[in-house]
Amino acid sequence: MTPDQAISNPPAAAPPEPEPLLLRAAKGEQVDHPPVWFMRQAGRSLPEYRELRAGTRMLEACRTPDLVTEITLQPVRRHGVDAAILFSDIVVPLVAAGLDIEIVPGTGPVVASPISDAADVSKIRGLDPADIEDIAVAVRQLVAELGDVPLIGFAGAPYTLASYLIEGGPSKDHARTKALMHSRPDVWHALLGKLALISAVFVRVQVDAGASAIQLFDSWAGGLSAADYAEFVLPHSQGVFAALGPAAVPAIHFGVGTGELLDLMRRAGANVVGVDWRIPLDVAAERIGGRTPVQGNLDPALLLADWPVVEAAVRRIVAEGRRAPGHIFNLGHGVLPETDPGVLTRVVELVHSL
Amino acid sequence: MTPDQAISNPPAAAPPEPEPLLLRAAKGEQVDHPPVWFMRQAGRSLPEYRELRAGTRMLEACRTPDLVTEITLQPVRRHGVDAAILFSDIVVPLVAAGLDIEIVPGTGPVVASPISDAADVSKIRGLDPADIEDIAVAVRQLVAELGDVPLIGFAGAPYTLASYLIEGGPSKDHARTKALMHSRPDVWHALLGKLALISAVFVRVQVDAGASAIQLFDSWAGGLSAADYAEFVLPHSQGVFAALGPAAVPAIHFGVGTGELLDLMRRAGANVVGVDWRIPLDVAAERIGGRTPVQGNLDPALLLADWPVVEAAVRRIVAEGRRAPGHIFNLGHGVLPETDPGVLTRVVELVHSL
Repeated sequence: MTPDQAISNPPAAAPPEPEPLLLRAAKGEQVDHPPVWFMRQAGRSLPEYRELRAGTRMLEACRTPDLVTEITLQPVRRHGVDAAILFSDIVVPLVAAGLDIEIVPGTGPVVASPISDAADVSKIRGLDPADIEDIAVAVRQLVAELGDVPLIGFAGAPYTLASYLIEGGPSKDHARTKALMHSRPDVWHALLGKLALISAVFVRVQVDAGASAIQLFDSWAGGLSAADYAEFVLPHSQGVFAALGPAAVPAIHFGVGTGELLDLMRRAGANVVGVDWRIPLDVAAERIGGRTPVQGNLDPALLLADWPVVEAAVRRIVAEGRRAPGHIFNLGHGVLPETDPGVLTRVVELVHSL
Repeated sequence: MTPDQAISNPPAAAPPEPEPLLLRAAKGEQVDHPPVWFMRQAGRSLPEYRELRAGTRMLEACRTPDLVTEITLQPVRRHGVDAAILFSDIVVPLVAAGLDIEIVPGTGPVVASPISDAADVSKIRGLDPADIEDIAVAVRQLVAELGDVPLIGFAGAPYTLASYLIEGGPSKDHARTKALMHSRPDVWHALLGKLALISAVFVRVQVDAGASAIQLFDSWAGGLSAADYAEFVLPHSQGVFAALGPAAVPAIHFGVGTGELLDLMRRAGANVVGVDWRIPLDVAAERIGGRTPVQGNLDPALLLADWPVVEAAVRRIVAEGRRAPGHIFNLGHGVLPETDPGVLTRVVELVHSL
């Protein structure tokens, strides 16, 4: 590990540091400028990531503490972001719980035996913290390395996990998922109940190992109507957040295309609601009741435009965020692999200068 | 062509028929039950379609008037829907205007030379009605065969057409499209202006040949923020509708995930706004000002659920539609290929019985 000022501990004699910017913004405290990090900041946009991952399968990388640590630190060193997020994949806890899933490059997760009935659900066992001791090790290493830069824990929400297990892999329309949800609500709720517990154990282990915040990704929830979300998804996402307990770390909740669901996602138990680029942050903040901080929301596609376009969008988003009761600057979805990492660094510098 | 009651002309001695249900609903007139048709009702869900298409490439099928006629009629005969929609593809007018595009099964449109600069745009020539005489022939044949069942003309909107030309094919994030839009607005507006004229000629030919209504598909517009839509897309979609003229046929405008854009899509010049399943129809009607009929919005994935689930959803949607100032029953996106066509027929019967 290269020593780096951005991630070293303060000298012992220094006065007590204020809480990191990310945590203050997540609590809605006044801050000079928003903290900034990027979904998928660790990943294919970075040449040092592509080099390190060469020859290692995704799931193997996610289960090797030294690799997880190094990959998670790379964007912190390079961009000076205000938070690290644990490098992982949403299927990691499912695989750790014994499900047969592979991540196929260019395709995504492929499930050997998709779930279609009660018998399939009954075979899913729970996740024991001992199954993911490697994740706890990675988190402890990271917390030691990161110093005062907070680490955000990572997990997939029950709905998005279920969609992979039922479809057998990525899907455009989630037709089998929705058919099962509506035709067999008993099977559906049994499945999501189990997945909520698996997610809860996965985040709990990260928090116990020292993560300062968590983000629950419900990436595909935006494909549901609000009525379906409220009936079939919300209770299970609530279960994940509730399992963190009242004195736990700040929890961020994010999905794509969730304009109609934002307030329900807040009600799931989020302290911060992630917003994609389709809705201005001040409008989103209003829509969730005007008292909850928001995270977002630069369209990742815009990072491929010329710098003046990026700069104007960043300034607009920071201004819109100032009208919200707390703002963590981020993209509206993950960094695209073809993004020039130099642009990400410039975005961090710009946000910090505003 | 098999003769069929559903598509035969009324006997000469019959009293004058009232206007077809679809047109009355599109004008916001009181009707006993909503008219019903399905996006992609002609297509892979029908065994008779798969049989007829076997061995014929998609673009060849779209340019062969007898095939277009027969494929367009198939769902009218089978389901008794209240409208036919011209079987075509949004890239048909682009190919007719000389662009080198192939539709690759399992992939979608593939563009030989994607558009990236002003020189590429300058090479795009206009569409001459003579280039699509085969489309006019198909429409005239269809109008003769359909009798009092109205034919809806079909075209892609400038933004969605542009996204294929710039990306070179289907895309998840439309990053190149958005980068060009923002970085080179001059090139962007030149391109969309040309595409609007091509779309306008394509629908004009269909209306002149006897189509009773048109639907403009802006399938991917839902990936844009309202601000970007208003600046970069709206003026060009307005151009397409304006080219139809004030006394033209009813125009339906549809995109997926357009909750934030519905009112802008109405302002583009639509007489009826298509709504996907994410938003109840009465909420959508309110959002577009309470005076414009809506079309939709059964989640096509739900057609794979058990019949009681489908029935409950259809009844709910018809009830929500009664609170809108006009309702055309449809899906919230196209029929999925794996849909049981028998379920579609039952949906038509159910809507007609309500």
